Amino acid sequence: MSQEEIQSLKDVANKLRIHSVESTTAAGSGHPTSCSSMADIMSVLFFKTMKYTVSEPKAANNDPWAEAGLFPTSELMKLRKLESDLEGHPTPRLNFIDVATGSLGQGLSIACGMAYCGMHYDKSPYRTYCLMGDGESMEGNVWEAFNFAGFYKLDNLCAIIDVNRLGQSDPAPLGHDMEAYRLRLNSFGFHSIVVDGHDVGELIRAFDEAEKTKGKPTCILAKTYKGYNFPSVVNQENWHGKKLCSKAPDASNPKIKSPVAVAPIVDISGIFKLSKPPYYRIGDSLATREAYGTGLVKIAQDNDRVVALDGDMKNSTFSLNLRKVMPERHIECFICEQNLAGVGIGLACRDRTLFPKTNVNVVGSHCGVSIGEDGPSQMALEDLSMFRSLPGCTIFYPSDAVSTERAVELAANTLVKQTMSDKVLIIAGGITLQKALEAASELAQSGTNVRVMDIFTVKPVDKEGIIKNATECGNKILTVEDHYPEGGIGDAVLDVISMEDIKLKKLAVREVPRSGPPMVLLEKHISGQTSKQSYHED
Amino acid sequence: MSQEEIQSLKDVANKLRIHSVESTTAAGSGHPTSCSSMADIMSVLFFKTMKYTVSEPKAANNDPWAEAGLFPTSELMKLRKLESDLEGHPTPRLNFIDVATGSLGQGLSIACGMAYCGMHYDKSPYRTYCLMGDGESMEGNVWEAFNFAGFYKLDNLCAIIDVNRLGQSDPAPLGHDMEAYRLRLNSFGFHSIVVDGHDVGELIRAFDEAEKTKGKPTCILAKTYKGYNFPSVVNQENWHGKKLCSKAPDASNPKIKSPVAVAPIVDISGIFKLSKPPYYRIGDSLATREAYGTGLVKIAQDNDRVVALDGDMKNSTFSLNLRKVMPERHIECFICEQNLAGVGIGLACRDRTLFPKTNVNVVGSHCGVSIGEDGPSQMALEDLSMFRSLPGCTIFYPSDAVSTERAVELAANTLVKQTMSDKVLIIAGGITLQKALEAASELAQSGTNVRVMDIFTVKPVDKEGIIKNATECGNKILTVEDHYPEGGIGDAVLDVISMEDIKLKKLAVREVPRSGPPMVLLEKHISGQTSKQSYHED
Repeated sequence: MSQEEIQSLKDVANKLRIHSVESTTAAGSGHPTSCSSMADIMSVLFFKTMKYTVSEPKAANNDPWAEAGLFPTSELMKLRKLESDLEGHPTPRLNFIDVATGSLGQGLSIACGMAYCGMHYDKSPYRTYCLMGDGESMEGNVWEAFNFAGFYKLDNLCAIIDVNRLGQSDPAPLGHDMEAYRLRLNSFGFHSIVVDGHDVGELIRAFDEAEKTKGKPTCILAKTYKGYNFPSVVNQENWHGKKLCSKAPDASNPKIKSPVAVAPIVDISGIFKLSKPPYYRIGDSLATREAYGTGLVKIAQDNDRVVALDGDMKNSTFSLNLRKVMPERHIECFICEQNLAGVGIGLACRDRTLFPKTNVNVVGSHCGVSIGEDGPSQMALEDLSMFRSLPGCTIFYPSDAVSTERAVELAANTLVKQTMSDKVLIIAGGITLQKALEAASELAQSGTNVRVMDIFTVKPVDKEGIIKNATECGNKILTVEDHYPEGGIGDAVLDVISMEDIKLKKLAVREVPRSGPPMVLLEKHISGQTSKQSYHED
Repeated sequence: MSQEEIQSLKDVANKLRIHSVESTTAAGSGHPTSCSSMADIMSVLFFKTMKYTVSEPKAANNDPWAEAGLFPTSELMKLRKLESDLEGHPTPRLNFIDVATGSLGQGLSIACGMAYCGMHYDKSPYRTYCLMGDGESMEGNVWEAFNFAGFYKLDNLCAIIDVNRLGQSDPAPLGHDMEAYRLRLNSFGFHSIVVDGHDVGELIRAFDEAEKTKGKPTCILAKTYKGYNFPSVVNQENWHGKKLCSKAPDASNPKIKSPVAVAPIVDISGIFKLSKPPYYRIGDSLATREAYGTGLVKIAQDNDRVVALDGDMKNSTFSLNLRKVMPERHIECFICEQNLAGVGIGLACRDRTLFPKTNVNVVGSHCGVSIGEDGPSQMALEDLSMFRSLPGCTIFYPSDAVSTERAVELAANTLVKQTMSDKVLIIAGGITLQKALEAASELAQSGTNVRVMDIFTVKPVDKEGIIKNATECGNKILTVEDHYPEGGIGDAVLDVISMEDIKLKKLAVREVPRSGPPMVLLEKHISGQTSKQSYHED
């Protein structure tokens, strides 16, 4: 490459530095010193190494990552303003951003999902780049991802660590000890290359070497200085996340390479269907997780971009069913759950596999005291609460084999049992629905009718259906859940009746449970409360 | 050591194997094959290496870990039964267990906390041992902990990985590649020793070498076989978590070594007080996090076992205040939040530092849309919901500098503003309390009085106080929170009024926010709803 080309990339890097100073000065906050340490890396990546069609930022063939030249530079002055899509940390609100960053340590897992998709599903030569900070690289999530990339030999993945030595409040643990980074990466199955991260020529050669390295992923370890080219703050502590001041020169940008168009066109926008409807005999008894395995296979038979991931539990969750018939559609992520979530998001980016629009479907099994002998550490009594607080997510809580298969297919609410003289509306889900139905039968024999409703989706809940049924049942609701009382079914129902004249009582798990047989635990922690704390007492 | 001693340890290992088979057969479930792979390690550790007073399992001088001989072996037949303290995964219900295991990957962080405490606070020669599975060792949390132990040169810590090759559903990623494990551990600052995990002599020598290794922690990499000494299942897949069958021979156990009694007696059972009361002038404006830093120093001045941990945010959270005056009482954990939580639990074990009884105090700052420009990834809009679902935890949400200092000191609820003619009870916390007070003043000028209550603790909430005040305010409540609507303040209040004739309306963040100035975001996402969705409309 020519001296001219190198100079041009250096100019771009300095322009990026100046943009970062000017835009964060206008915003009054931001991270110009970190922008400065990675400016040369960004310049080489965007304007020399990556292949990208600027006019089609979401095109399947593009190397996955953000890109320069995608919006007018004047927009930079609106950074961090409410009306601007240039937020404090990038989000997919910008059409050239595939995933939100900002939560440290998640990027490499997502990049692993993108690279796995390119290698095994798209079978396309696009390459995935992931730049992270040295402080960030200490996150355990990152080491789960390094392990994944090494294990699956993702040679289409290039990680870059911007080793600028300084964290926010202190030097990062390894400082500028590049050899320590190199040994760590090598031991995780990477080809690693240490470079001067401000030497454009070295960077170009390293990215070329990464592309030529086969059978293992590459990590470029770039020794840089925070605040490089800002003489008054360079390599000094206490300049993280603070604005500076400077002025911008003029320069024109080099051209960006176009990608090779070989990634298949994928359409996963339609409705997914079970290849065959659920089929069980009345009275059959089986775990919902087994029906999940059956439903997963049926959905995957209907669409060749359905993929399942598991964390060394596939013989318990029954995702093994899919692996048996379509091994290439099942990814074992081992006991690295954070990385599993990130890989799922990466696979789903740009609609390359199911999980429409980065909506990864999370399927849990073995929740509640009803798991029994494995004890409280395995009961996930907080899972409903945690997922309920995520905006936009839908939570299914299927109660039998048929509804589980249909949940995989996104089925609608079902009302389970009613009479014209119901005294109370019992709302339950999962295993507590079965127990509620049993209780309802017993009560009916002694002359008291109660209505039982399957909540099915814990988010959103069927507000109209609940109010209508509760009104028909004397304005009384009893919620029954095999979870802690906070943030779950009871709270979800309370939320939609908060302005109504309806009383509600919760049955839930009110202390940390212990090990025991499932039905004994259900009696002790949930059903047992009915005698001590009867609904009608109040 | 004599052949007789070695044989005796081998006998103990086989006895442990047989106990595991018999007890899991009686329970009908459990993990005998994993017990078998680690039986020789456990035998050597308990009966040769560790120093322990069996009659005083919580004694400060004991090497931290579980121990044999602490309950009658007949109890083993009650494993996993509801009335037994021997649960599916060990919990502190057993007096010789310091922390619950079962959630994979957390143990080493806790061990790091124990070792750090021994080295820097107790200044005692006790050693900490942490045995983990090879599948488990893939968890990112474990690599955060390895990094911590290496960085702080915890040579009183000995990690052991039981490399039995097999996970639950597949071989673990590294199989029996002991060299790969060795390179990884070395690169994280450990002295690592590969041994045959079924050779008692090699194990004894390795533990000796670990004790003699100074300036770095040791990891013993034990190559073992799952189901060792069970010829029909040894080293085979699909035997994880399943019962077997066998019979027990007789043998007497070797004696356990006593510890050296040099760890100081520590009493942290009293009430902790601020060394000086909060002092601010009316009208002073400062961030609650700054008051937290002030309160932290005052609490630490009152008791020399108060310790603070931070994740490279100390200049933002103001825990730096403590580091400035007492650097030895502040532990920088870098960007490894999972490990930070585990180290805190380890430090608090056996009441060695504040955080009475493994109650670690988690202090968060920068939550809600009111953080502004850094954008939604930094807003932690789910934190109340997540913590509310943890049994037994108390959640403080201080709204000003004085209550923040007092929150550090565990203060009581405060009612903020009331008149005799209040039309509605507004319940808020943190920054929304300030906004509610401003709104109340405006409304009062136009002739409408509203009552404002500071929730202060989100868990537990003051049920009597809320019902009494709501009743005095026309049975109407408006909750205002800078969080998502699920699982937070609104749900917490709904829970305690669910059987009352009180209506409640929530103001909360109902969509994923974007970057912008804090006050603009508060108006857009929370206050703005009052006009669109007025309380009085309903």
